[in-house]
Amino acid sequence: MTNPLKIAIAGLGTVGVGVIKILQEHRNMIAARTGRVIEITAVSASNRSRDRGIDISGYDWVDNVLDFANRDDVEIVVELIGGSDGVARELAQKSLASGKSFVTANKALIAHHGAELAQNAQDNDVALGFEGAVAGGIPILKSIGEGLAANKLTKVYGILNGTTNYILTQMEAKGKDYGEILEETKLLGYLEADPSLDLDGIDAGHKLAILSSVAFGVKTNFDNVYMEGIRRIKLVDIEYARELGYRIKLLGISSLSEAGLEQRVHPCMVPKTAPIAIVDDGFNAIVVDGDYIDRTFYEGRGAGEGPTASAVVADIIDIARGHTGPAFFVPPSEMLDAKAISISDRVGPYYIRLHVEEQPGVIADITAALRDEDVSLHIMLQKGSEQDGTVYVVMVTHDTHEKRIMNALSQIDSLSSVIDKPLAIRIENL
Amino acid sequence: MTNPLKIAIAGLGTVGVGVIKILQEHRNMIAARTGRVIEITAVSASNRSRDRGIDISGYDWVDNVLDFANRDDVEIVVELIGGSDGVARELAQKSLASGKSFVTANKALIAHHGAELAQNAQDNDVALGFEGAVAGGIPILKSIGEGLAANKLTKVYGILNGTTNYILTQMEAKGKDYGEILEETKLLGYLEADPSLDLDGIDAGHKLAILSSVAFGVKTNFDNVYMEGIRRIKLVDIEYARELGYRIKLLGISSLSEAGLEQRVHPCMVPKTAPIAIVDDGFNAIVVDGDYIDRTFYEGRGAGEGPTASAVVADIIDIARGHTGPAFFVPPSEMLDAKAISISDRVGPYYIRLHVEEQPGVIADITAALRDEDVSLHIMLQKGSEQDGTVYVVMVTHDTHEKRIMNALSQIDSLSSVIDKPLAIRIENL
Repeated sequence: MTNPLKIAIAGLGTVGVGVIKILQEHRNMIAARTGRVIEITAVSASNRSRDRGIDISGYDWVDNVLDFANRDDVEIVVELIGGSDGVARELAQKSLASGKSFVTANKALIAHHGAELAQNAQDNDVALGFEGAVAGGIPILKSIGEGLAANKLTKVYGILNGTTNYILTQMEAKGKDYGEILEETKLLGYLEADPSLDLDGIDAGHKLAILSSVAFGVKTNFDNVYMEGIRRIKLVDIEYARELGYRIKLLGISSLSEAGLEQRVHPCMVPKTAPIAIVDDGFNAIVVDGDYIDRTFYEGRGAGEGPTASAVVADIIDIARGHTGPAFFVPPSEMLDAKAISISDRVGPYYIRLHVEEQPGVIADITAALRDEDVSLHIMLQKGSEQDGTVYVVMVTHDTHEKRIMNALSQIDSLSSVIDKPLAIRIENL
Repeated sequence: MTNPLKIAIAGLGTVGVGVIKILQEHRNMIAARTGRVIEITAVSASNRSRDRGIDISGYDWVDNVLDFANRDDVEIVVELIGGSDGVARELAQKSLASGKSFVTANKALIAHHGAELAQNAQDNDVALGFEGAVAGGIPILKSIGEGLAANKLTKVYGILNGTTNYILTQMEAKGKDYGEILEETKLLGYLEADPSLDLDGIDAGHKLAILSSVAFGVKTNFDNVYMEGIRRIKLVDIEYARELGYRIKLLGISSLSEAGLEQRVHPCMVPKTAPIAIVDDGFNAIVVDGDYIDRTFYEGRGAGEGPTASAVVADIIDIARGHTGPAFFVPPSEMLDAKAISISDRVGPYYIRLHVEEQPGVIADITAALRDEDVSLHIMLQKGSEQDGTVYVVMVTHDTHEKRIMNALSQIDSLSSVIDKPLAIRIENL
């Protein structure tokens, strides 16, 4: 047994508390597995007196978290504060610069500054770990970067946000509309402090940018992730999806080809028999396609105290074992600047839902707009009027260029008989 | 870029050829990822002249594979010969003893001699890797031993043999009986040279023994794995399973509790909505339960040139990166001798299928036998006679002790009206 591995923890929210629980409860087991005792020397959080249900009296309390970077009794700084900039970023920079390894579950930080921080870690010959940033309970970054390292990967996609998956699952299970389930979800405390991170696909976008980098060795480029959330999904869409043989899931999809790197987060209709279609509630799942493995599938809890803390501690264990290396599994100098493919270049089938007033000529106007953009229909459904005399018209197109769909929908939106903004959901026959 | 990592490959069957293809095709990609070029210096197989569709003219051909252990230009010996003993074992012992790392996909070797070889590797300060031995395309050993290392794991189970999963899937899909599908499967070349390894659950048993060791830190103990294969499953069982809301899968199940270590491979009825129930054909899937992650699920191709070779090369990449450590992720001295729990201690529900002559008193005799062992029935189905005047009687029990079921079935088997040996399938409500 060599000397203890001393760490400091910044942020004592759900995940920080989970990390401390694991390190306390499994102290001996982890020491047996790694050959080193993991010792917490100092902690820091915004509120010192809050009862967190754990005993932190044995650790130094530090008011200014940046002090961690200067302590001789800290080998790893664990950052669980959050936010892409501000104190989290400063702590990362200062810790790495003073030769400390840095472990974080902060997806925004890594999505925005991952390439720069990986370079800092390399320059200072220390480790940077962020397994907890993507799909908490699933060791997906390690699986991709090490387990599948013999493969050229071509596509990675999955359900990366548990909260929106919970909302979509509950809408279907309870037959309730978005607004009602959203309120229930808020009461359960499942939403991020800024709900837009979940609902607009930004949290999933952060995770997708990180996954892309690990899978394809490209520089993290969050700015080129297309993001569209679930706010416009209605119960009627979920019901039509089921009728058409699909389920609606918010997916992050990333692929690298000769043409460039595609990164997009948006609601998808996926065949209801696809493994990813039956991943419900707070679970995450990721599919990885590679040239020698063909396809692999990973599922687990996406967030929460236990799963995310488990990933953070796994990073600490890797460091204790001396299993360190480039943060994105390839040296920063080898990371590629991939050309971004725009969402407007997507080609595939679309589900279109229109809410219109029931008047003569409506369908003629709509189909004319589609014809003008060469959009060819595979299915069209109209099932009688709602109580207010309006009607839902649902269509499924053949493979179509995204630009043409958007042009047609914009023209349809301008028709006086169209009530809501038309909605298109991309169909992914995964 | 440091010096090349030199390896020798023993065995040029499907997997050996796959390893060479990957190392040739992805030479530069792997060098970028690891900082070292992987160089094959020598190869060996039983037949030198066979056309394998790859160019091996640049590698030394060695007739006696044991010579690898003495070569100065070999840092890793890759063993893809197979077999628990004989040359594979001797090569492992000699290679490790002469300070070479050893990478293998040989599940029989590791299931039988894993603990001893792990000790040899440790004594000689070299690595022993066998990711390819379990669930080819899924990096499951790394996921468990590193990704989930912060957890105390409680249960690991899964579909560990692709061939039997293919047979069961095809029986259901085509509505054909076992014998017919077995013949088709043989023609496709999916069976091991000794079909008993697949059909009697031995191959799955080897993999389960390895999984148990990695998950629970217990010494590999293949002798205590209970194994029962799929030879007695009939189409009628698959049809009844569906009707009862189940599918039949050959599972390996391992769990560690205060009472000891349970390791068993046998056909199970699993709820048809369980993720593992929809894993079809040649795919493998593994579920891992731990105290902080809750539950994770992994699916991928179980065997074949690409997936298994990918796992073998991943082990080589780990060594190139210097990510070495104890073979079972815990030092051999820390591995536990767990008390084995016998299959006869299982408690749970059972599906029972009897094939009997239609005579007065048959059901009375059967139910009396069950009553005498306190077996309580939840469901009983009898749906008219077959063309030959015989009848199938199917029952589902409440939770029952395995011993009692086996006693009752043995008594039922002795009844003159019972045609086939009664079959019990354990129901696992996973």
